[in-house]
Amino acid sequence: VSTWSLSSGVNPDIHSERTSPSFPVERVTNLLDGGAELTATRRHVESIINSDSTFSQDDRYFLTRVEQYEGSVRRAVRLREKMKELGWADNGTEAMFAFRVLGADVAFGIHNGVFIPTIKELGIEAQIAKWVPLAQDLQIIGTYAQTELGHGTYLRGLETTVTFDPSNQEFVINMPRLSSIKWWPGDLGRSATHALVLAQLYTQGKCQGMHAFIVQIRSLVDHSSLPGVTVGDIGPKMNFDQVDNGFLILQNVHIPRENMLCRYSEVSPDGTYVKRGSDRINYFSMVLTRTRLLSAEIIPALAKACVIAIRYSVVRRQSKLKPGEMETKILDYQMQQQKLFPQLATVFAFHFMASSFEAFCNQVKVQIKSKGDFSSLPELHALSAGLKALLSDVCSAGVETCRRACGGHGYSLLSGLPSLYTRVAGSCTYEGENTVMQLQTARFLMNCLSKVYSGQPLPQSVSYLSDLFSTRCCGTEKTDFIKPPVYTKAYKHRAQRLIKNAGFQLQSLLQSGVEQYVAWDSTSILLAQAAIAHCQYTIVNNFVETMSRLQHEPEIQQVLQVLCDLYALSGILANAEEFLHDGYMTGHQLDLVTASQRDLLTCVRKDAVSLVDAFDYSDQQLHSAIGSYDGHAYQRLFEWAQKAPMNAKVPFALFLALSSCC
Amino acid sequence: VSTWSLSSGVNPDIHSERTSPSFPVERVTNLLDGGAELTATRRHVESIINSDSTFSQDDRYFLTRVEQYEGSVRRAVRLREKMKELGWADNGTEAMFAFRVLGADVAFGIHNGVFIPTIKELGIEAQIAKWVPLAQDLQIIGTYAQTELGHGTYLRGLETTVTFDPSNQEFVINMPRLSSIKWWPGDLGRSATHALVLAQLYTQGKCQGMHAFIVQIRSLVDHSSLPGVTVGDIGPKMNFDQVDNGFLILQNVHIPRENMLCRYSEVSPDGTYVKRGSDRINYFSMVLTRTRLLSAEIIPALAKACVIAIRYSVVRRQSKLKPGEMETKILDYQMQQQKLFPQLATVFAFHFMASSFEAFCNQVKVQIKSKGDFSSLPELHALSAGLKALLSDVCSAGVETCRRACGGHGYSLLSGLPSLYTRVAGSCTYEGENTVMQLQTARFLMNCLSKVYSGQPLPQSVSYLSDLFSTRCCGTEKTDFIKPPVYTKAYKHRAQRLIKNAGFQLQSLLQSGVEQYVAWDSTSILLAQAAIAHCQYTIVNNFVETMSRLQHEPEIQQVLQVLCDLYALSGILANAEEFLHDGYMTGHQLDLVTASQRDLLTCVRKDAVSLVDAFDYSDQQLHSAIGSYDGHAYQRLFEWAQKAPMNAKVPFALFLALSSCC
Repeated sequence: VSTWSLSSGVNPDIHSERTSPSFPVERVTNLLDGGAELTATRRHVESIINSDSTFSQDDRYFLTRVEQYEGSVRRAVRLREKMKELGWADNGTEAMFAFRVLGADVAFGIHNGVFIPTIKELGIEAQIAKWVPLAQDLQIIGTYAQTELGHGTYLRGLETTVTFDPSNQEFVINMPRLSSIKWWPGDLGRSATHALVLAQLYTQGKCQGMHAFIVQIRSLVDHSSLPGVTVGDIGPKMNFDQVDNGFLILQNVHIPRENMLCRYSEVSPDGTYVKRGSDRINYFSMVLTRTRLLSAEIIPALAKACVIAIRYSVVRRQSKLKPGEMETKILDYQMQQQKLFPQLATVFAFHFMASSFEAFCNQVKVQIKSKGDFSSLPELHALSAGLKALLSDVCSAGVETCRRACGGHGYSLLSGLPSLYTRVAGSCTYEGENTVMQLQTARFLMNCLSKVYSGQPLPQSVSYLSDLFSTRCCGTEKTDFIKPPVYTKAYKHRAQRLIKNAGFQLQSLLQSGVEQYVAWDSTSILLAQAAIAHCQYTIVNNFVETMSRLQHEPEIQQVLQVLCDLYALSGILANAEEFLHDGYMTGHQLDLVTASQRDLLTCVRKDAVSLVDAFDYSDQQLHSAIGSYDGHAYQRLFEWAQKAPMNAKVPFALFLALSSCC
Repeated sequence: VSTWSLSSGVNPDIHSERTSPSFPVERVTNLLDGGAELTATRRHVESIINSDSTFSQDDRYFLTRVEQYEGSVRRAVRLREKMKELGWADNGTEAMFAFRVLGADVAFGIHNGVFIPTIKELGIEAQIAKWVPLAQDLQIIGTYAQTELGHGTYLRGLETTVTFDPSNQEFVINMPRLSSIKWWPGDLGRSATHALVLAQLYTQGKCQGMHAFIVQIRSLVDHSSLPGVTVGDIGPKMNFDQVDNGFLILQNVHIPRENMLCRYSEVSPDGTYVKRGSDRINYFSMVLTRTRLLSAEIIPALAKACVIAIRYSVVRRQSKLKPGEMETKILDYQMQQQKLFPQLATVFAFHFMASSFEAFCNQVKVQIKSKGDFSSLPELHALSAGLKALLSDVCSAGVETCRRACGGHGYSLLSGLPSLYTRVAGSCTYEGENTVMQLQTARFLMNCLSKVYSGQPLPQSVSYLSDLFSTRCCGTEKTDFIKPPVYTKAYKHRAQRLIKNAGFQLQSLLQSGVEQYVAWDSTSILLAQAAIAHCQYTIVNNFVETMSRLQHEPEIQQVLQVLCDLYALSGILANAEEFLHDGYMTGHQLDLVTASQRDLLTCVRKDAVSLVDAFDYSDQQLHSAIGSYDGHAYQRLFEWAQKAPMNAKVPFALFLALSSCC
């Protein structure tokens, strides 16, 4: 092997892509980070993490689950040490970036992200003072035990019971049947010493619905499970090998009365159930969790996949487009551009959407905290559900498109792409199954629609429902279709039509005497379609608005406008039927959209590598042999493969055994 | 846990689904197997395999790669012993079923499936006599080393060279650069002693193109690699953990002149290159390999996913459709039916297509063997490429749809669904990358189109290109659309239009002076679309024809006709734009198709479990905790999870370490 000269510089095939970008790459990075200062902070945090060997994951593709789990615990502990050492506040910018860089590869995600915040939210001062410091110091590790074997998204169906016994001022926890076993909670399988158990509260013979209780499940001395507690890991998953998602059985487990989180409701010593205030704030937390998921997990998965696939596509040469010349970079094939560039545009579209949605969240938070005004909550909730469903679906499909666009090497774990897919695919079912999410959005849309008909005012994000319903798209040549007013109008029309369509079918069924629940179920396919169209309109609109705010940065506005147009037109082509159906667009107009979209692919080609460079992921974050900055895909595949445990020893004994038996 | 009574019978929720199927289940099984006799043989083979503990894979989700690999070798050896013991011929029916049941879980797949057959095909008698018996007895293990780090589907780009040296009657093998390393061959990483190396042949200073050479790579004494040979495993993949896909570096390796497979071409002692006859038969083998892939890997993946998802959907109850009643089986929701039933219909559509295609292969084989008539080869090749691309894409997407339809539990490896996906997804890139495959089909279609215009006769599968081009769909009410002539006509029209459309654009570009290769690349998106439309028409047509041949079996014909209609209508809805584009269908007609398709979902509902039972997969083949015949999903998830290595020990030491450092 020594006869080949291995390269140390940058692969010329990728270097040449970077020589003359049409825009200042760093400015796009700043825009994505939220400003140059934040870019600097992020890079500072990353350099600290990348230079600490505890955080290194060079061997990530070769470890067993147990090894991966143990690594994630080591990283979690090390991160806490670092944070203390460097004085990073728990909710500070540095910590946020650190958690984002390490993601699910650091343990205690549920402990930090759900257990502690929920106690802060649903607990009273005394409870917060007792539990939170212990948890923050990792003296105890907590999980959030809600989902059961038999019930997930449908919370009312949860079966675990907590019964108050006034005689000894204790709650008694039980699980009536096998399907009641708590199943899936993260950090539960091996780590947790405590669980926040969500269960049906019974007192004075009456069920008061779901409440949260702190239950110790393992010994703080030797980590063995306590009496009445059976706990373990639920086994391997499609990804998240490092997370100890667990099961928990509680049989006749007693906890003191004080362990019920009682900011919004309480059981008095005599067993009287007292409700105080509304726990609607809980919905707001759910929305926040989902929003964080978008920017921390879902969108970055697609962004990383784009980086890997686009870089690989300029160093992979295959076949000759033009006879007699060098083999062609695969990114120069139209099919490859058609696979990858719409994904790249989607990353930007979703990033800007998530930013705007975060701003909306903060605004609602102020309304709630300052005025106790919960009126925007339904809108926020509906939009968060619909966006979570759409973004997780689209990003999953997009990552897989990028993976397949890398051919055989995209099937190797070393490419980094399979893990990106198997991880992001989980987001389609966790934090609310996507179909259920879409139908929640649709329910809100149906409520809004009835407001339109009764002349009531509409929340801002759906105000377009009462706008004029245009019937014909006005584009007549292909350049018309890259005009934002033309395509936003088209998306608006489609959303209006599909929402009204679903409402109409629902009404018709009800008027024909069909029962409410049957009508709803029979309309569910249309309702989901309507929810998607609403979200897509919102995203296109938001991209266009974001671009108009960028007018003071013409150097980057131009290239991003191309991506905005590409996102919009690719979406029209992918859902063309819905634009043609009622004649809003004609087949001929669609041909113009197609021609226009092909032109945009050509525009993006020259900046493609610089655009993914702008995401500014270090090689340590990509974990990809084929997507590294220097473009030495083959060399790195070869080097990494050597480290595989399969290469550790020659299976001599096995082969002796083999040859002797035949 | 002992307080819960665990069930041993069949879950009543699945039992009730089986009490009154509308058709004789066993007859459908027979039809799928190709007759009652073959069903019996298959069950016999399966019972032998299921009763031998060497073949047991109860622990498959808990093993390391090395353990999985070793298990697959043990199974391969055991299978060979069994075959000897029971007198199963190498190409007999029993062996075929055995290999199909064990699939990629038994080692030496490339050895048995490619190494041996290629020697038989490209070797002369003396070569076959020398190598094949050794290989069949596993005295040597062979791999097929074609793909390189830098080149896959584009074979002409392969870089490994073999140079003839007349002075010592040897070939010398070399790899000029890193990208020439052989990469991906199965059975190579740890098992192979020999490799069939595909390389560019140089003799008398001239390159004669790709030829095949037998090269020993490891010692038969101690399995160490021979001088000049560097060999190992390429590391972990998205699936196929048990397969030792490997890399191979050959530097200045000498092999005797006789090791070139020389049925069709030879190098004489003086170095003269002699070609004899055509090796077109090689294309035929490639077609056969692809066809086997369809029935052995791709279609069964979707079939198994349907079994698991549909069975789980009748034992999973979630939320209440009707207030006050029991929670609803999730299969009773329209959205769930919309996700799963089109997949079920697809399994049948693809199964019948694969059967017909196999028959076509056999017919062509006879033409070739008896008359040396290769005239049908281009048609066969084009159809095999297009079908492979379409079926692997659709089955991959379908498996993933089934997986997600099982919510959170579908994300657990124990459900069996993630592995079905990660495995079948590989088929989109191996045996020819799908986009390249589609463009090969398209090239054939463009040739046929030019024959239409010049009045030449067309091969049977594309003869419809010269049929009348109808311009309007004639359906006026929803029942019209379940008439096979109505929907086959629609598919035909769409295929005709898209093929002509691509041809038209290609011609226009050429006539405007654009170079051939640019025109082809600029039309590639349309060309791929045309290839897909052609294949979908072929499949729908074939389903309809298969049904018409079933008229003597009305008891099963009825339920299968529903699936045929469902397949056709679901396909129209999924590609609706292409039926609306030129006004062949109107938006209103599409609404009728939608209504009709919903009715079909309801029809399938009552037979859904019986239909998947008819696939007759034993629990041992499904490897699914949630899809077993008895429907005890939760119980089995709980039992299987206990076996996870993560539950082997309490991580006490780790937690001591952890608590001490904070």
